[in-house]
Amino acid sequence: MTPVQPITPDALASALAAFRAAQPLVQCLTNIVVAQWTANVLLAAGAAPAMVDNPNEAGDFARVAGGVLINTGTPYEETAAAMLLAVRAASEHGTPWVLDPVAAGGLRWRTSLAHQFLDAGTPAIIRGNASEVAGLAGGAGGRGVDSAESSETVVDVAKDLAKKHFTVVAVSGAVDQITDGDRLVRVSNGHEIMTRVTGVGCSLGALMSGFAAVEPDGLLAATAATALLTVAADRAYAVAPLPGSFAVRLLDELAAITPGQLAAAVRLS
Amino acid sequence: MTPVQPITPDALASALAAFRAAQPLVQCLTNIVVAQWTANVLLAAGAAPAMVDNPNEAGDFARVAGGVLINTGTPYEETAAAMLLAVRAASEHGTPWVLDPVAAGGLRWRTSLAHQFLDAGTPAIIRGNASEVAGLAGGAGGRGVDSAESSETVVDVAKDLAKKHFTVVAVSGAVDQITDGDRLVRVSNGHEIMTRVTGVGCSLGALMSGFAAVEPDGLLAATAATALLTVAADRAYAVAPLPGSFAVRLLDELAAITPGQLAAAVRLS
Amino acid sequence: MTPVQPITPDALASALAAFRAAQPLVQCLTNIVVAQWTANVLLAAGAAPAMVDNPNEAGDFARVAGGVLINTGTPYEETAAAMLLAVRAASEHGTPWVLDPVAAGGLRWRTSLAHQFLDAGTPAIIRGNASEVAGLAGGAGGRGVDSAESSETVVDVAKDLAKKHFTVVAVSGAVDQITDGDRLVRVSNGHEIMTRVTGVGCSLGALMSGFAAVEPDGLLAATAATALLTVAADRAYAVAPLPGSFAVRLLDELAAITPGQLAAAVRLS
Repeated sequence: MTPVQPITPDALASALAAFRAAQPLVQCLTNIVVAQWTANVLLAAGAAPAMVDNPNEAGDFARVAGGVLINTGTPYEETAAAMLLAVRAASEHGTPWVLDPVAAGGLRWRTSLAHQFLDAGTPAIIRGNASEVAGLAGGAGGRGVDSAESSETVVDVAKDLAKKHFTVVAVSGAVDQITDGDRLVRVSNGHEIMTRVTGVGCSLGALMSGFAAVEPDGLLAATAATALLTVAADRAYAVAPLPGSFAVRLLDELAAITPGQLAAAVRLS
Repeated sequence: MTPVQPITPDALASALAAFRAAQPLVQCLTNIVVAQWTANVLLAAGAAPAMVDNPNEAGDFARVAGGVLINTGTPYEETAAAMLLAVRAASEHGTPWVLDPVAAGGLRWRTSLAHQFLDAGTPAIIRGNASEVAGLAGGAGGRGVDSAESSETVVDVAKDLAKKHFTVVAVSGAVDQITDGDRLVRVSNGHEIMTRVTGVGCSLGALMSGFAAVEPDGLLAATAATALLTVAADRAYAVAPLPGSFAVRLLDELAAITPGQLAAAVRLS
Repeated sequence: MTPVQPITPDALASALAAFRAAQPLVQCLTNIVVAQWTANVLLAAGAAPAMVDNPNEAGDFARVAGGVLINTGTPYEETAAAMLLAVRAASEHGTPWVLDPVAAGGLRWRTSLAHQFLDAGTPAIIRGNASEVAGLAGGAGGRGVDSAESSETVVDVAKDLAKKHFTVVAVSGAVDQITDGDRLVRVSNGHEIMTRVTGVGCSLGALMSGFAAVEPDGLLAATAATALLTVAADRAYAVAPLPGSFAVRLLDELAAITPGQLAAAVRLS
């Protein structure tokens, strides 16, 4: 059992300090749309991204990486094969990995890929929006749940999914909800403009991979990543309320924010 | 026959209002260089991008998308196969699709791909620069026409291409020229700096796919997309005349501009 | 033998003027993370990027391009095959090409690819950080040298590599060191923040490809590209010291800087 500490603002601040000190090496197998943005988010926050996503190298690299991100945004035969190899190698070697099942439920092939990955190993964290989490859980069908659905229903689905896979499930939304099946943390920072810039959610999965590299409690790792991104977004939106300049400023804030500022601004419940 | 209305500033404003209200789901099969930028342009303008470009999913998705973009900027065997499936599915299902034949005429394989797509269905709009339109039309050969050629010659080529394929052809340039074979609209907004940022032309094709999702007259859809992008570019250039900050500001302006501002600033002839 | 001129600030200024006048067509076979950024850097500086990286077209295009970039950041079977075809065609036709062996030494497959490319032709320039240059040279093994190692050791490795392959080797770092095996130039502009934005190093390889298109002396071409990027970075950092806005400003400075400003600010030794 991972020793469990309370998820408090101070614990998040400590996690950020540990992240910055460790500069975790995060292997990203992600989509062509957000690869650049994801790398820039990781670099701004203080991690070291490495996009090693071919079958010849992905498995070996997952043994040396601090954390691994598997994001199904634009899967192809070759990158999907690399993802499976990375999942297997990470699982064998004990490298924490994060599954971001983009559009799970809505599209059949990638949903089956996500299930293959879950069969091949246990992720530290599964991250998605309400629709993706429900789609991955399968009960509600691909189009049965969308982001607007009652957040209480989503929490039940997320808790069941977390218990079934012995993992943490993080549901992004107006309020982010993160659960390990028993505990539930809500983070109510962030702004709707985050959905007007491509890849902000995807980069949250990448940050979670980095925090998982330095923090063994997946619930704390997922919450710290969520807090970092959403608090930085609040600060960016305050001065840059349009999407082009917001994205630029978000990177600046990810680099500038201190652990103390994070603890002071995060809204947990 | 599509009912035809005059292409006026007010008609463009109405199209933008319809676009914003509908938030069209735009499936993009595009190149690795501009995928992020294209998604951000669509999000800023008010659409919902989805880059579903693998053969396992592209056809199914083209049935639910509002519009489909086919851009041949960096084709690979797998994505080219996905494009053909998307074209077929879109054509069968009545989803409007836009062809952006990047570098057609200049490069053989992608030119033949573009012709395959045209054989498999009828696009709502073909968008390119003068060289690409001439290259696709084939008469002038791959290197026979470049963007500097007489715009009148290009108009004749574009009209013939539009008639041959029962579509609208939009030729980007210092003055944008858009024709359905009979009617011809010119939009004289925009600035040369748009060619100093990668993907601005490609994102115009994506915007056209979104407008085609809400507006059945392809000539109006193509003109509205052109007006939106070029008027936003004029506003961005006025405050950000260098390419890095211009690109950021262009996204901001795409989000901020109102239908009324569009109608007031567009220069049609 | 290429006629050799001294590498002086004035020679760099002349090279930049020639680059801007020629607007060299640079074919980039690069990775999915930095493709957009690389194109924008080339466009801002005044070149014309073309990302033609499929096996059906890469060889033909290498015959018409001014310069070719081969970057192994995210190789796949299809793009690796395209790279080999581009290297062969460029070598046969006399098109200068630049090898950026991303993560050479650390990852086996891409290291063997880089060696294949070197067996198939002679690059104008090899660019990497100290670890990559040592990894490609092979003597120190994949993990034997990192960027922190004594720069003098790296210089010896770089000189040997340059002599072995009859090329120029450019080692990026706090001080950039560029050698043709005999001569050695150091450029001490630039700032650590360049490592906090993805693709800055990769775009340096692309700029070198563009300068190699207009300047036959590889040492001068590599130095001019390095000077342009690092002086522009100094200017950007002075007004934008956080990574998001730094990247935007760097593009602006690449477009705005004059040959005279370059000559005045570069620190050569």
